[in-house]
Amino acid sequence: MIIVIQCKDQVGLVAAIAGVLANENINIVSMREHADTIDNRFFVRIEAEQYADHKMLEEKLYDVLPADATVKVNPSPEKKIIVLVTKEYHCLTDILIRNHFKTLSATVQCVIGNHPGLQNICQRFDVPFHLVSHENISKEIFEKQMLSIIRQYQHDYIVLAKFMRILSSQFLEQFFMRIINIHHSFLPAFAGANPYKQAFERGVKLIGATAHFVTNELDEGPIIAQQIIPVNHSFTAVAMMKAGKEIETAVLARALQLVFDDRVFVYQNKTVVFE
Amino acid sequence: MIIVIQCKDQVGLVAAIAGVLANENINIVSMREHADTIDNRFFVRIEAEQYADHKMLEEKLYDVLPADATVKVNPSPEKKIIVLVTKEYHCLTDILIRNHFKTLSATVQCVIGNHPGLQNICQRFDVPFHLVSHENISKEIFEKQMLSIIRQYQHDYIVLAKFMRILSSQFLEQFFMRIINIHHSFLPAFAGANPYKQAFERGVKLIGATAHFVTNELDEGPIIAQQIIPVNHSFTAVAMMKAGKEIETAVLARALQLVFDDRVFVYQNKTVVFE
Amino acid sequence: MIIVIQCKDQVGLVAAIAGVLANENINIVSMREHADTIDNRFFVRIEAEQYADHKMLEEKLYDVLPADATVKVNPSPEKKIIVLVTKEYHCLTDILIRNHFKTLSATVQCVIGNHPGLQNICQRFDVPFHLVSHENISKEIFEKQMLSIIRQYQHDYIVLAKFMRILSSQFLEQFFMRIINIHHSFLPAFAGANPYKQAFERGVKLIGATAHFVTNELDEGPIIAQQIIPVNHSFTAVAMMKAGKEIETAVLARALQLVFDDRVFVYQNKTVVFE
Amino acid sequence: MIIVIQCKDQVGLVAAIAGVLANENINIVSMREHADTIDNRFFVRIEAEQYADHKMLEEKLYDVLPADATVKVNPSPEKKIIVLVTKEYHCLTDILIRNHFKTLSATVQCVIGNHPGLQNICQRFDVPFHLVSHENISKEIFEKQMLSIIRQYQHDYIVLAKFMRILSSQFLEQFFMRIINIHHSFLPAFAGANPYKQAFERGVKLIGATAHFVTNELDEGPIIAQQIIPVNHSFTAVAMMKAGKEIETAVLARALQLVFDDRVFVYQNKTVVFE
Repeated sequence: MIIVIQCKDQVGLVAAIAGVLANENINIVSMREHADTIDNRFFVRIEAEQYADHKMLEEKLYDVLPADATVKVNPSPEKKIIVLVTKEYHCLTDILIRNHFKTLSATVQCVIGNHPGLQNICQRFDVPFHLVSHENISKEIFEKQMLSIIRQYQHDYIVLAKFMRILSSQFLEQFFMRIINIHHSFLPAFAGANPYKQAFERGVKLIGATAHFVTNELDEGPIIAQQIIPVNHSFTAVAMMKAGKEIETAVLARALQLVFDDRVFVYQNKTVVFE
Repeated sequence: MIIVIQCKDQVGLVAAIAGVLANENINIVSMREHADTIDNRFFVRIEAEQYADHKMLEEKLYDVLPADATVKVNPSPEKKIIVLVTKEYHCLTDILIRNHFKTLSATVQCVIGNHPGLQNICQRFDVPFHLVSHENISKEIFEKQMLSIIRQYQHDYIVLAKFMRILSSQFLEQFFMRIINIHHSFLPAFAGANPYKQAFERGVKLIGATAHFVTNELDEGPIIAQQIIPVNHSFTAVAMMKAGKEIETAVLARALQLVFDDRVFVYQNKTVVFE
Repeated sequence: MIIVIQCKDQVGLVAAIAGVLANENINIVSMREHADTIDNRFFVRIEAEQYADHKMLEEKLYDVLPADATVKVNPSPEKKIIVLVTKEYHCLTDILIRNHFKTLSATVQCVIGNHPGLQNICQRFDVPFHLVSHENISKEIFEKQMLSIIRQYQHDYIVLAKFMRILSSQFLEQFFMRIINIHHSFLPAFAGANPYKQAFERGVKLIGATAHFVTNELDEGPIIAQQIIPVNHSFTAVAMMKAGKEIETAVLARALQLVFDDRVFVYQNKTVVFE
Repeated sequence: MIIVIQCKDQVGLVAAIAGVLANENINIVSMREHADTIDNRFFVRIEAEQYADHKMLEEKLYDVLPADATVKVNPSPEKKIIVLVTKEYHCLTDILIRNHFKTLSATVQCVIGNHPGLQNICQRFDVPFHLVSHENISKEIFEKQMLSIIRQYQHDYIVLAKFMRILSSQFLEQFFMRIINIHHSFLPAFAGANPYKQAFERGVKLIGATAHFVTNELDEGPIIAQQIIPVNHSFTAVAMMKAGKEIETAVLARALQLVFDDRVFVYQNKTVVFE
């Protein structure tokens, strides 16, 4: 059983929470607590061994916590996700494979693409694919068409698996901190377009990738995970892009695992990640 | 203030501990808890913001814990250490530099060498160096001579910074889980002598180093930290050794920092490390 | 155009080889040379820009090289491979995805499994799957059945993508240095069975994976690539195995890319890898 | 013997160079060649076994190369360096230790500090320390005073080991591509001042360091080496800075080793590094 709690920090929170658990005779296997003493926020993630009435436990925890608290007891271990893609396959197929073999900790409800290229691979995995082309229509209509599909499916998160269109504030605000993007650079270096071309021209010795929640500020949302790989003078911009795809796949997979395991808390423009 | 506790696991421990802190109005900044559900052991490390009467707090914690508990409130932030060396300088000088600039979280009381080569560098840092040669004497007498020097200094830990003699059970049992060694391989690969020669002959692509507590079983004590670096066909055994020294220095420095910050718990033949 | 040459070392080899290329007006883009001065072997890999009559160029190179030389000009960029599997999917699906999107630098001719579990995923990618069960038959007959299938397909390499049967000398010697295995540990640590259980019990802080050519000596063939990931006390043996699968997938993918790009030379029990 | 050559690319260069060596009966142990096909530049580094008349060999190589070639045969294995510092000790002491034990591949001629804090540690290693305060004088005069000291010593390179003053174009142009700096971020992320504060506020999960040659464009010169380490929510800006110092020390040490071993070529605003 996983318990995650976020609220404003004050003395006695751990005692109060652990007291509730002890009263219910629930043993704690692993506990991670963090207090941001600058922003005065409290975060805790508890793995507890025994099972109980989740609803009642949640209420008992709310009873001892500040009014602003959010408590989730046993957050659904199987999240539901919708994946948005354009042409590149590498992140999508990694998700489809894990989904197929039930090691994703989530279920892919459908894939929406603004290009038909990845329809075939979705079909091979019996995952619904919806084509919503952005061509010859306004962004407003493009997003409305996507929204009408999204609403057909239950979903906890939307994953931008190399989706190459910029989404509007109107679209984004409907999924606050529930859209996860993989950015093809070690943010904040090389934000924006063509990061591999920028990296090549700058002659860097490492390239990276960043998984983050999407906010209105392009490439500026809370960072979930980052990784890098070494490159050198023998890498052309194309070779850097190829190497980058490997690291993009790995970082997005890692970030999704962390989010789906309820290890990621968001506040301000940051994350607390209990790895 | 740091609080570390180890005891047998049972329901309600976190509530009991956090209850004591809450009663004293002590806020918890960061808390790491782990229960080994196989061996039934409980470990917790708490960083708390406010200060209090450490002795009294320790007693109040003992009052609510199982009989086998060990509690340390604010374990001395400045540990005292004795360093044993032979000829190689790289680990010793890293320690001496950090000691000199007071970033080691410990104080080097003295250095004992079984070879005079590193005396000069110790003198440059005003650190006492004691030469205890192993030549022409029995191991028993060699160790007795070292012990008589060790007893002159207060010490929390003994660090084997490339000390190339094997110590007897009689010696080791006087410093149970208080001797830290750096082993020049990625244990358990290449245990024993000449690991770089072994690695070269095997044609490995990574070499590593392992910092561990020393037990009677050679190279078999609880592991604190490990790291690796890539090597390739162009590395001779000598080049591997040179690269290995860099990683040995880094791993020992990391392990000492973890131990001196009271982030390492030992039980069975393992460690719990709250990084 | 890629040119790879291995022969005994002697003065003037680079001059002789580069002389042939210069005579044909072929520009060298990138060149990696290594001489093992202990074993007296010479290795070179050349990426050259212009194209020419590969057959004739090969002959002209043989003309200036020692009698034991092996020369390959423009080795087929698309290798043909056969993949052997048991039950675990992670390495196989990584290969199937790259094969499907033509980024493997090789073509999967067929998959042979000693268990039916991975048949379905092969069918989804239109890759032939052959079931050869080892149950109730001798190893000799088991291998004969596999050989009769292998002989139906052209193949440059056989990839053991988590194939959990030990192959006989008789089988192996037919594919000398053409069988690539992924071993689920950082060899030579934890050779043999259940490496994750061994790693868990030893309390290591890193686990790894090793891709190597298969020889008669179990887990002792020439190493192509190795990588590691950090683990800690919170990892059960099962969690280590799960983390290990990620690194196994990555290391095998890396090793295959290196081999298929003709960057790996084998001699003695070692490799020269021009990354 | 090391031979390094840079010139414009053309067909036959390797043949010409290797031909000269073969004529002199010089065996090549290891050779790295790279041609930048966009910028039309040729780079080669040769490790050769036998020794010869270096001056004559250099001339024979110049005879067969384009007019713009630079050839160095056996570039002095012991470089001479001057180190500039301010207050932070970590990069300086790493250099001083290696210098003292003769593993730096260079000799520290002197240290110049604009603050007296590091004088004592230089004295402990018998390395001349010159204090040139920037206070109450113009940058012009400050740099003149430094130049007058620099001119007293032979030097191949000037190393900015956490020297916190920005040098003028007039100063820099006298040491074109001979000044090496360690920048406390993963450039181009967080260029400029206070990178750790920037990194903390952005909530990054990795921080890095970059060693580069210094040009007029601040933090924009050719990159020699970069590395990163993971950080997380528990790191304050101060803790990030502390972790950063470890990686700064390691990256600068690595970059110096590469430069002093003649593995680094500079052209345009990039480097070719034959690791």
